[in-house]
Amino acid sequence: MNAVFEPGAGKKHVIGVDFGTLSGRAVVVRVEDGAQLGSAEHAYGHAVMDSVLTAAPATYGTITLPPDWALQDPGDYEEVLRRAVPAAIAEAGIDPATVIGIATDFTACTMIPTLEDGTPLSRVAGLEGRPHAYVKLWKHHAAQPQADRINDLAAERREPWLARYGGFISSEWEFAKALQLLEEDPEIYALMDRWVEAADWIVWRLCGNYVRNACTAGYKGILQDGAYPSSDFLRGLNPAFADFAQSKLAQPLGELGSRAGGLSAEAAAWTGLPEGIAVAVGNVDAHVTAPAAKAVDPGQMVAIMGTSTCHVMSSDHLVEVPGMCGVVDGGIVAGLYGYEAGQSGVGDIFGWFIEQHVPERYVEAAEARGISVHSYLTELAYAEPVGAHGLVALDWHSGNRSVLVDHDLSGVILGQTLATRPEQEYRALLEATAFGARIIVETFKASGVPVGEFIVAGGLLKNRELMQTYSDVLRMPVSVIGSDQGPALGSAIHAAVAAGEYPDIRAAAAAMGSLIRNAYEPQDDSADTYDLLFAEYRRLHDHFGRGGDEMMHRLRDIRRDVLAEAAAPRQEVSA
Amino acid sequence: MNAVFEPGAGKKHVIGVDFGTLSGRAVVVRVEDGAQLGSAEHAYGHAVMDSVLTAAPATYGTITLPPDWALQDPGDYEEVLRRAVPAAIAEAGIDPATVIGIATDFTACTMIPTLEDGTPLSRVAGLEGRPHAYVKLWKHHAAQPQADRINDLAAERREPWLARYGGFISSEWEFAKALQLLEEDPEIYALMDRWVEAADWIVWRLCGNYVRNACTAGYKGILQDGAYPSSDFLRGLNPAFADFAQSKLAQPLGELGSRAGGLSAEAAAWTGLPEGIAVAVGNVDAHVTAPAAKAVDPGQMVAIMGTSTCHVMSSDHLVEVPGMCGVVDGGIVAGLYGYEAGQSGVGDIFGWFIEQHVPERYVEAAEARGISVHSYLTELAYAEPVGAHGLVALDWHSGNRSVLVDHDLSGVILGQTLATRPEQEYRALLEATAFGARIIVETFKASGVPVGEFIVAGGLLKNRELMQTYSDVLRMPVSVIGSDQGPALGSAIHAAVAAGEYPDIRAAAAAMGSLIRNAYEPQDDSADTYDLLFAEYRRLHDHFGRGGDEMMHRLRDIRRDVLAEAAAPRQEVSA
Repeated sequence: MNAVFEPGAGKKHVIGVDFGTLSGRAVVVRVEDGAQLGSAEHAYGHAVMDSVLTAAPATYGTITLPPDWALQDPGDYEEVLRRAVPAAIAEAGIDPATVIGIATDFTACTMIPTLEDGTPLSRVAGLEGRPHAYVKLWKHHAAQPQADRINDLAAERREPWLARYGGFISSEWEFAKALQLLEEDPEIYALMDRWVEAADWIVWRLCGNYVRNACTAGYKGILQDGAYPSSDFLRGLNPAFADFAQSKLAQPLGELGSRAGGLSAEAAAWTGLPEGIAVAVGNVDAHVTAPAAKAVDPGQMVAIMGTSTCHVMSSDHLVEVPGMCGVVDGGIVAGLYGYEAGQSGVGDIFGWFIEQHVPERYVEAAEARGISVHSYLTELAYAEPVGAHGLVALDWHSGNRSVLVDHDLSGVILGQTLATRPEQEYRALLEATAFGARIIVETFKASGVPVGEFIVAGGLLKNRELMQTYSDVLRMPVSVIGSDQGPALGSAIHAAVAAGEYPDIRAAAAAMGSLIRNAYEPQDDSADTYDLLFAEYRRLHDHFGRGGDEMMHRLRDIRRDVLAEAAAPRQEVSA
Repeated sequence: MNAVFEPGAGKKHVIGVDFGTLSGRAVVVRVEDGAQLGSAEHAYGHAVMDSVLTAAPATYGTITLPPDWALQDPGDYEEVLRRAVPAAIAEAGIDPATVIGIATDFTACTMIPTLEDGTPLSRVAGLEGRPHAYVKLWKHHAAQPQADRINDLAAERREPWLARYGGFISSEWEFAKALQLLEEDPEIYALMDRWVEAADWIVWRLCGNYVRNACTAGYKGILQDGAYPSSDFLRGLNPAFADFAQSKLAQPLGELGSRAGGLSAEAAAWTGLPEGIAVAVGNVDAHVTAPAAKAVDPGQMVAIMGTSTCHVMSSDHLVEVPGMCGVVDGGIVAGLYGYEAGQSGVGDIFGWFIEQHVPERYVEAAEARGISVHSYLTELAYAEPVGAHGLVALDWHSGNRSVLVDHDLSGVILGQTLATRPEQEYRALLEATAFGARIIVETFKASGVPVGEFIVAGGLLKNRELMQTYSDVLRMPVSVIGSDQGPALGSAIHAAVAAGEYPDIRAAAAAMGSLIRNAYEPQDDSADTYDLLFAEYRRLHDHFGRGGDEMMHRLRDIRRDVLAEAAAPRQEVSA
């Protein structure tokens, strides 16, 4: 509770809604102090459509999707508003009339093709069976050929914006996905008036106004210094793509935390909230988490650690950090440059190891103890001093996002003997992700944007040994977010600002955010040994990642070639 | 059966006895054609003593052994003669009077300290509780400091014999073990009249004559061109060691396959065999396997593949092959130079992977199919084309014996993604051992002793996919021994020669050996892709094994230091 208590403020509430990959979660938050009073989750009815277009009416039969596709149905997002919001209010036991604002965050880059009024093309009669009419989820990876062409052409033309993205535009982002749509279904492309981030579409549905948020416009939409990639550039990709940015993408921007509009009558009916309350400009899950962890000042890096890790940090000056995902003016907090970096594999590498490499006796022992296999392996592994396993690993099983920006890299583990046990390899993988984080932190520092504080949010913060390892490896205290619903709390903070209860995100974060500062302090003894292991990690990193040996790429090429050969029909030679 | 049949030869038999690490196995073999008529195994009562000296009388209490020790009790070897030989004869159903000779092979280098008459010191009254009075088994690794000093001094003095061993004398061999004995228990050393290979001691027990076999004298005893390391050299190691070779080691040599003597009355009583029949000169398990596989000509390499692989090959000329284990005149077949090389980890790496890395669902599926996990993983892995796993591994989990001669190297696996499955990693390890074999074959060729035929013996030959992989990787046909008791059959062949039934080992091998020639032929398609993978293996091999990056040694140093630190008592600093 704040030292200065404003009478009556305790009765005001805001709603934050976090739209994830498989479900949406609403929380009710007290404006005064950020207390989370109730929450509810609603799973998307169609989940992720990656093999069959289950949202298409049955009359279309079974529509299968090619590899690497990932679609969603926009109706599932509306359903979260209809179900999770009222349920969260009910759980909180508050009077809906005390709610003064609502804000949302979304996965990104998740894109919806719409008509001029925001109607998704998947709802247009006759288009319900067309895959390209649906939402392309962030992890739709079928636009890689288009992304490759974007990168090649941008490098060739020395497009100045390329360096703002560490030299690499992702296949997940707005331009690559749109270009795929144009080239694979030009009819849908022609019918598409607007190409809308789901983060903005949901706000459009809440308040009736289409406001493009500064965050995704910058990080995913290549909007830099007020401009999109030029028509010349886009024409070079495909003549029919020349006017894409101006005709289908450009839209007035909204600052993060500002008011996009008032809650519409329709949305008020869905949610049970008062018509006209503030609806905040849209935002992205990782980025709203920063204020939820009170990380709104320059140099505060927030690592949202889950299956992968996203690092966000604000700074008061603009530099180009090699291998970052992007830097965007006002991308996290209005008035500061927001930087983003990432590790493409973290928790999912640990999960893969447990799924694929752990014998039954470990599973049984963990069950007997009533703890997870993760916890059991961690406990066994950390019973030994740092460095006793004699191993070093590279955490590149999903490639390397930052700072190498190379998705064709792969994992390594080195140092095994016949005495090496699974828990030791597991620990080597935990450590590898910490070393990967240190590479990112050191790269930011070397580029002139030093990391002053390292804050962890996300599911992995519950592994205390892992957190201590990060602290030791980084030789920095590690602070952790105090909420287990960081994104939804972050959205609620934006709602409070949009409603005018706080002058800006910084003030709201101070009152409503939650941070356990310096929860872990580096231990010098461990840090000294981790320094030695990190030196080995960096040697492997540079050898296999920076051209010392292109082995990983060659192994991928071999793999691709032999699989293509195996799939190709055999030509019979007849006399 | 031979084309020329000698009437009555069918009634003559020989006995081969293979003394392994945990048991001895006797076989009854028909002299005429090598048919194996009966066999029996006897496990050593004291197995391997590596933690407690269980052979010591109870009155001594519990005598514990330091790390890396591995002792045996010589009485266990005699028990094999008393039990397994009669049992094998009984199983064969032959008249013992038809047995005309017996021969033995042994693990090496396995050493027994004895009195002048061959009595083991462990049987001398008052010494039964002294560890150094017992047999030092081949895998007794506690003489590494002595081996290091031998190697350092030999390199410093440029001793000419060092190159005959690939530049490296092992801690397992005769001099290192003896020097450890001298330095740790000089009283036992002083009482020790003879330092005897178990291979020769068992022959001594059978016929009453101490004949030193040319094989171990050369490979393990550093006897080259008729001379042991000089007194000057030995004095440099330890003044008290100066006369070691002449006073305790030197002994007239016996050619392999020659007669050491006639079966003594005592041994005849133990075995039930006729007194006076031929007892062959001692030999080593890997080396007797060569004639069992009809591999007695120059260029025929026999790979005995089990937990590790031993490669033996004869040649008519003497060269120095970098990283070989040794080259010895008459070391395999009298009249030819015998070469030996090795891979320190093969089957035990596969076993380690299955023990430490395979989830329960694989174990269950294998059980449901009624096959081993090894077979199940092999089947799954080979359902994919070569190279589809995208992996490359180094098979150095037990270090690298040939051709790098570095026991501090360790394993690597590279190329994992989140889609990598255990069977793919298992296959990468199988392939790594094939690549390791190719390095050895290519090194021999580059040194001027080309390998003309590759023959596999040992337990791993039953994995047909593995054998095909070796054939593809080597681009050579792979022949396999036709007996599942190669060493014992090889000993029996030596017995037949010692008994005068064949003029030499070559003739006996032709009649009694068993070889399935070209059981596997290289497949060009696979071989082409294996060539690509081998190129990657060689790059890793040279990078981490030949000084490109000393990472594996540094990781070992880190490990050693942190474990020593953890074990050391903490010093309290008081004011």
